Amino acid sequence: MIIVMKKGASAKQVSGVVARVESLGYRVHLSAGEERTIIGVIGDDRPIDRTHFDLLDGVEKTVPILKPFKMASRDMHPQDTIVSLDGVKIGGPQIVIMAGPCSVETREQIVETALAVKEAGAQVLRGGAFKPRSSPYSFQGLGEEGLELLAAAREASGLPFVTEVMSPEQVPLVTRYADMLQIGARNMQNYALLQAVGKVSCPVLLKRGMMSTIEELLMSAEYILSSGNPRVALCERGIRTFEKYTRNTTDINAIPVIKEMSHLPVILDPSHGTGKWEYVTAVARAGIAAGADGLIIEVHPHPEEAWSDGAQSLKPERFAQLVTQVRKIAEDVGRC
Amino acid sequence: MIIVMKKGASAKQVSGVVARVESLGYRVHLSAGEERTIIGVIGDDRPIDRTHFDLLDGVEKTVPILKPFKMASRDMHPQDTIVSLDGVKIGGPQIVIMAGPCSVETREQIVETALAVKEAGAQVLRGGAFKPRSSPYSFQGLGEEGLELLAAAREASGLPFVTEVMSPEQVPLVTRYADMLQIGARNMQNYALLQAVGKVSCPVLLKRGMMSTIEELLMSAEYILSSGNPRVALCERGIRTFEKYTRNTTDINAIPVIKEMSHLPVILDPSHGTGKWEYVTAVARAGIAAGADGLIIEVHPHPEEAWSDGAQSLKPERFAQLVTQVRKIAEDVGRC
Amino acid sequence: MIIVMKKGASAKQVSGVVARVESLGYRVHLSAGEERTIIGVIGDDRPIDRTHFDLLDGVEKTVPILKPFKMASRDMHPQDTIVSLDGVKIGGPQIVIMAGPCSVETREQIVETALAVKEAGAQVLRGGAFKPRSSPYSFQGLGEEGLELLAAAREASGLPFVTEVMSPEQVPLVTRYADMLQIGARNMQNYALLQAVGKVSCPVLLKRGMMSTIEELLMSAEYILSSGNPRVALCERGIRTFEKYTRNTTDINAIPVIKEMSHLPVILDPSHGTGKWEYVTAVARAGIAAGADGLIIEVHPHPEEAWSDGAQSLKPERFAQLVTQVRKIAEDVGRC
Amino acid sequence: MIIVMKKGASAKQVSGVVARVESLGYRVHLSAGEERTIIGVIGDDRPIDRTHFDLLDGVEKTVPILKPFKMASRDMHPQDTIVSLDGVKIGGPQIVIMAGPCSVETREQIVETALAVKEAGAQVLRGGAFKPRSSPYSFQGLGEEGLELLAAAREASGLPFVTEVMSPEQVPLVTRYADMLQIGARNMQNYALLQAVGKVSCPVLLKRGMMSTIEELLMSAEYILSSGNPRVALCERGIRTFEKYTRNTTDINAIPVIKEMSHLPVILDPSHGTGKWEYVTAVARAGIAAGADGLIIEVHPHPEEAWSDGAQSLKPERFAQLVTQVRKIAEDVGRC
Repeated sequence: MIIVMKKGASAKQVSGVVARVESLGYRVHLSAGEERTIIGVIGDDRPIDRTHFDLLDGVEKTVPILKPFKMASRDMHPQDTIVSLDGVKIGGPQIVIMAGPCSVETREQIVETALAVKEAGAQVLRGGAFKPRSSPYSFQGLGEEGLELLAAAREASGLPFVTEVMSPEQVPLVTRYADMLQIGARNMQNYALLQAVGKVSCPVLLKRGMMSTIEELLMSAEYILSSGNPRVALCERGIRTFEKYTRNTTDINAIPVIKEMSHLPVILDPSHGTGKWEYVTAVARAGIAAGADGLIIEVHPHPEEAWSDGAQSLKPERFAQLVTQVRKIAEDVGRC
Repeated sequence: MIIVMKKGASAKQVSGVVARVESLGYRVHLSAGEERTIIGVIGDDRPIDRTHFDLLDGVEKTVPILKPFKMASRDMHPQDTIVSLDGVKIGGPQIVIMAGPCSVETREQIVETALAVKEAGAQVLRGGAFKPRSSPYSFQGLGEEGLELLAAAREASGLPFVTEVMSPEQVPLVTRYADMLQIGARNMQNYALLQAVGKVSCPVLLKRGMMSTIEELLMSAEYILSSGNPRVALCERGIRTFEKYTRNTTDINAIPVIKEMSHLPVILDPSHGTGKWEYVTAVARAGIAAGADGLIIEVHPHPEEAWSDGAQSLKPERFAQLVTQVRKIAEDVGRC
Repeated sequence: MIIVMKKGASAKQVSGVVARVESLGYRVHLSAGEERTIIGVIGDDRPIDRTHFDLLDGVEKTVPILKPFKMASRDMHPQDTIVSLDGVKIGGPQIVIMAGPCSVETREQIVETALAVKEAGAQVLRGGAFKPRSSPYSFQGLGEEGLELLAAAREASGLPFVTEVMSPEQVPLVTRYADMLQIGARNMQNYALLQAVGKVSCPVLLKRGMMSTIEELLMSAEYILSSGNPRVALCERGIRTFEKYTRNTTDINAIPVIKEMSHLPVILDPSHGTGKWEYVTAVARAGIAAGADGLIIEVHPHPEEAWSDGAQSLKPERFAQLVTQVRKIAEDVGRC
Repeated sequence: MIIVMKKGASAKQVSGVVARVESLGYRVHLSAGEERTIIGVIGDDRPIDRTHFDLLDGVEKTVPILKPFKMASRDMHPQDTIVSLDGVKIGGPQIVIMAGPCSVETREQIVETALAVKEAGAQVLRGGAFKPRSSPYSFQGLGEEGLELLAAAREASGLPFVTEVMSPEQVPLVTRYADMLQIGARNMQNYALLQAVGKVSCPVLLKRGMMSTIEELLMSAEYILSSGNPRVALCERGIRTFEKYTRNTTDINAIPVIKEMSHLPVILDPSHGTGKWEYVTAVARAGIAAGADGLIIEVHPHPEEAWSDGAQSLKPERFAQLVTQVRKIAEDVGRC
């Protein structure tokens, strides 16, 4: 980190700061500019809270130099991580498409959807058994019964499934059924939950919070990685902005940014990213063109009867068109 | 809710929508405009997902008419709610000031702070034993030992205390010690946690998420209220915007908005709202002038040595000045 | 528009609102719900300020039903508009690529760039002669000399050029030289300027403000269209959000949204959308995959010596790779 | 500025950067850390574009140390600036209250309002003759006739007036009538306009753009100051965020931040800051409590008939209550 002294800071103030830095085991490098003296801290200072220095006499501000994440960083782990679930490899040459309904509703619904998305070319089934809803009066998911229905759909279709886990105490239950655990956007900074999924060996799909920075997403991945679970895939699902014509703003920039900074695979969720089925296919194509390792898409056989998120769900036939279009683009960017 | 049909929607499409609405037990009111036909749904339609209708043939969009919260609304509960903890009444004529360090660090630190803030005029002690930190490498709080130290500081000072609870399984432990449970901003939509604190009788201070609308805050309060705990106070603590000179943007508008829409008391947190101690006193005054029922302020005897949030912590003597200034403004707005 | 009365509004309040609506020449449709009475206004009410009704006794709120733009809307003009400049057709089957430096600096720089981008496959040259800069101490552009150099580069390369105009009084001068006028993001709501370019026949590239909604962009287009100039192309260039790793957040959703709502062509600017050359190619591919009608890209022969925006400028050889990749994706989406 | 080299940058890359910095007339200070080499640039480097260095071989990023504004900074001008118009002193001990309608509509309306707000305690009249409207179909202001009516209201009431100027060519006309020129939020970065008002001697009220940072506001003030006009007052009028219950989010933090960084006076506009008259008085009180030098408030004798912004306009009697409440708080913070 760099510590910038105020204009006119005294020699005594400067030496006070230097003494403090050295007392913490770091060396310093002093640079007396025309307007400001600057103190460089030499060593890995990420464990120190910068605000300790912000408050010392004569300090104007501190500036971090190192990125705060380590295990999630490509600096530490240059080659791409591949997360495998039941033979499906996320982060390898092949684009992985996950699809299914927002909520598991009935056995017929989930089995029918699983067969349809498999037929259309999906490799992973998605579906929620525990649903975080902003209203306590909305449908909250079928719970364990939903997990059982997902398992039945897996058996019928051969597709592994990903499903959301909402609290640390649900982790053992959901892990018993699921092939991949999803951490939803609202729980991206639920650290107790991150630590709990960091202690199992099941792969994790970590969704970006709707108003979280890319850096915070990587720090949340760091929680899981540093707790012992290296099988993490990230998911960009749109952020909250002032724009009102769409439910969220898909941060397409995040795809190349994350690919550059981290070795973890990145999945795009254009269903939440747009919130309207009419725009899902266009944004799915964009995600693959930008370099995403896969997609997660809401598909429902009868969106107008869906118990949640119908407006952003594709019917199976439209989903099949999406897959065809996306696979062509995947080839253009050297994937399959 | 109102269902707006597309320009040129056919009579068949209109009657299809009407049939669907009626099948759900509601009546309709049809209005054929020059450009659009509009279908009003008569009855309390909050339990239905609007997207069911968005997807019907010929529908352009749906517009909600009722606010989604009920128990948190002043419509249902016109008089102000007063939340009492150990004799301190939040939401009554007197402004309530909560103060203390971000984190509990040592017995000396928390007892010294408790005595100092009491002397300066605070009525409630704050301090974190479980700390949600964006980095897994940062100090995560003392845990139960921190709760014991808070209890010791309560005994020494006579001040009740509020402290954060981060997961459902911590609720019994924290409830055993604390006078008020804090739900932090990052957990505002951790629904498992909201339901857990909704099942105890301890008062709850619910902080607004940095990415959450006022409506979502009131919906999260609704989770607690509808789970059985009516003792909820809300806290505005700044939202995330594009502005970079401050850590967050204090949403001062939220104070009069919440007071109009809800009967629940509102506390302002200018420490997180600004992120810099230099601005805390000015924004604290603003909060009381705008009608807040109280303040929660970070105070540390030695901010430059604080284990977290030092940059936004006031020294006890500055905090005492803040209290004096704020009490004068409280009188101007008819409080004490 | 729909007028929602407060819970318990009296019959007298309702009839007062009805009388007011009718006095303005509209008919009403009354719908008495269980909780609220709703008054539909029948007719094209876009010229009326809704707030007139918001303030009437007993009114809770008003809700607009019609979109506020007309000439920019696909409702009024279903087929795609094609904007031609000197033989280049924006909005037709072929993707149009505009490229060149942020600022015109020297004759050599602009002529060399024009020849290089033409060689790589660009159809339009871009370059700024009048530069809006946030600091008065930064380079403000060469002014008319820059226009002359652009004209020289056009002669040398055969490429028509687009360049920014910053104030109404510059319009005659810039129109004398340029093939297309650019309205920059900071001027999207400079209505005097919009009206001025609406009165000439030169094509206009209207960039979205970094703080503007899609609806506001279409309303600004409406200013130009309704002033008499139908030759308008829109440009998505990234919006301002809380994310810090990129200069702006490219709103990729805006591409399919605008294509659905409006007949005007849409160009993507991934250079400003990301702010870093490393991410420009990935986001350019995404834009074409999402359905954009073209791209505008900053290219400089020596970015490290550019007088502005070097960090987001591509070198000609990287730009050539971008064009190759983008043309492949164009084919996949049925373009060329 | 500080230039951070990439991990593992070679000695040759470092010396290349050093040579480049020195070639521009600056000295350097080298600091070789454990993970990164850092190069400090010594001297006032604000005129150089940092991106020149960002692109040099081996550079990871650059970090500015100096704030980009000079004349607007308290560093250069420690004492408060007082802007006087016709005897009213903005920025001195007395709080200045500006009030009047959004738009000038008729002689009766503006004269009646001027007399009413004067009676209630306002010192400056406000009113728009040229109106920036997002729709070309909305009322655009009376133009010069509006200026004449404002002058008539001034004569009747004795109050000086502030009114908006929207383009450089309007500056001579508006200056002929007005006591203070307003630059509206949408024009905060209309640099041609800033330079035009920088060349007259009339005081300027510069409103913050709805999605502009405080730094950008101060840079826009710098344009006016550096063009030769030192009589600038700033205005916080709410920023655009994701919150939907209010029209904008009043950035109350901006008040103490600007007072610390700049010597220019700051006025708060709670009418635009909230967008609803119900919240204006509470937020006006908050602004004065936070240290604002004054307020600008929309007042209309018949808000329900206002031609624009009726929803956020106070009736004269409510405005009188606001003034009384605000003056009490002014005393508490040592103003009058």
